[in-house]
Amino acid sequence: MVITIGREFGSGGRELGRRLAENLGIDYYDKEILTEIAKSTELSEQYVKQAVEGKMTYMYPITIGHSLTFAPDYQIKQVQDIYRAQTEIIRDYAAKSDCVIIGRCADYILRDLKPIRIFVYADMEARIKRCMDRREEGDTTTAAEMKKHIQRIDKDRARYYSDFTGQDWGDKLFYDMCINTSDIDLKALARYLANMFQYGIRTPEE
Amino acid sequence: MVITIGREFGSGGRELGRRLAENLGIDYYDKEILTEIAKSTELSEQYVKQAVEGKMTYMYPITIGHSLTFAPDYQIKQVQDIYRAQTEIIRDYAAKSDCVIIGRCADYILRDLKPIRIFVYADMEARIKRCMDRREEGDTTTAAEMKKHIQRIDKDRARYYSDFTGQDWGDKLFYDMCINTSDIDLKALARYLANMFQYGIRTPEE
Repeated sequence: MVITIGREFGSGGRELGRRLAENLGIDYYDKEILTEIAKSTELSEQYVKQAVEGKMTYMYPITIGHSLTFAPDYQIKQVQDIYRAQTEIIRDYAAKSDCVIIGRCADYILRDLKPIRIFVYADMEARIKRCMDRREEGDTTTAAEMKKHIQRIDKDRARYYSDFTGQDWGDKLFYDMCINTSDIDLKALARYLANMFQYGIRTPEE
Repeated sequence: MVITIGREFGSGGRELGRRLAENLGIDYYDKEILTEIAKSTELSEQYVKQAVEGKMTYMYPITIGHSLTFAPDYQIKQVQDIYRAQTEIIRDYAAKSDCVIIGRCADYILRDLKPIRIFVYADMEARIKRCMDRREEGDTTTAAEMKKHIQRIDKDRARYYSDFTGQDWGDKLFYDMCINTSDIDLKALARYLANMFQYGIRTPEE
């Protein structure tokens, strides 16, 4: 069993994934993927992070100052190398054991394995509240700034996802289940979903 | 507990709703709403059916032959009367007992009660298969014709829904959970969801 979780920023998708893995007693992969990619590509973790978070787009021109330009060739190649490493690492995880994988186009990369593809979202108000509650001490980000931050991250994720998969990020047709967490107790939800996935709801293969 | 189910035509939303109600031992409302509306408005059931299935649009001009025209005033009024009756009937159902309500903008009409809002969908191939399997004996509709039929019904539903609610039909933000049934055993799904809803996954009210 492989469960992939796509998620809007601030929707609690990562917490749901972690709790699902705990309830099912299976592996959980999230940020460690970055470390592995960095090792495999010999690029810095910070660079890899920027790339997989869609901050270095390569399919479209980028704006530097006031002039429109294209990413340089070496950068395009690096982003592609990173995606290739990401693909291999995620396939290795899925081959090794049952697991939950957060983000990273895993739903698409593992499509032949027919993973359970979940997308987690919430209304903007709930996402802002969640992010504000989780600010570190001394962080003075305002709600308005947080909203912009959330929108920017989602936009980057959507672009990276569609660049590499050709699918629309968050389009429900590409997921098995989409869950609105605005009003949800994630602990309880994870418990019931784990039960559901453990015993299975898929039509038996013909 | 009130559960509303929006659904793409051919996705099995009605079957899921019926099974959910059975598992939970609560009431189930589907086509009987039409009969009640017909009684309350003194219009024929056939007329009411056409109206609530979005075949008599009134917000936008309609094409008759080659000329663009607007629905006549009396028809606009009737469609509005029907929606008003639908609203009252659905509110009565929800006030009377726990229930599952299929379609009919119930998610929007009952929004103050915070129902569990489910949207059921599936890929086109699965929906065509489901509809073809359910043809009555002697029905010679082809798969290509069925596809057009499905698309037309969805288009009408979407228009009716957005005319009266101002929301986009099927936009995941307006639902608590969206479920892709392409590959799902509805009987098993209904059993697990019923369990989940019975014990609850909502955050307690503050």
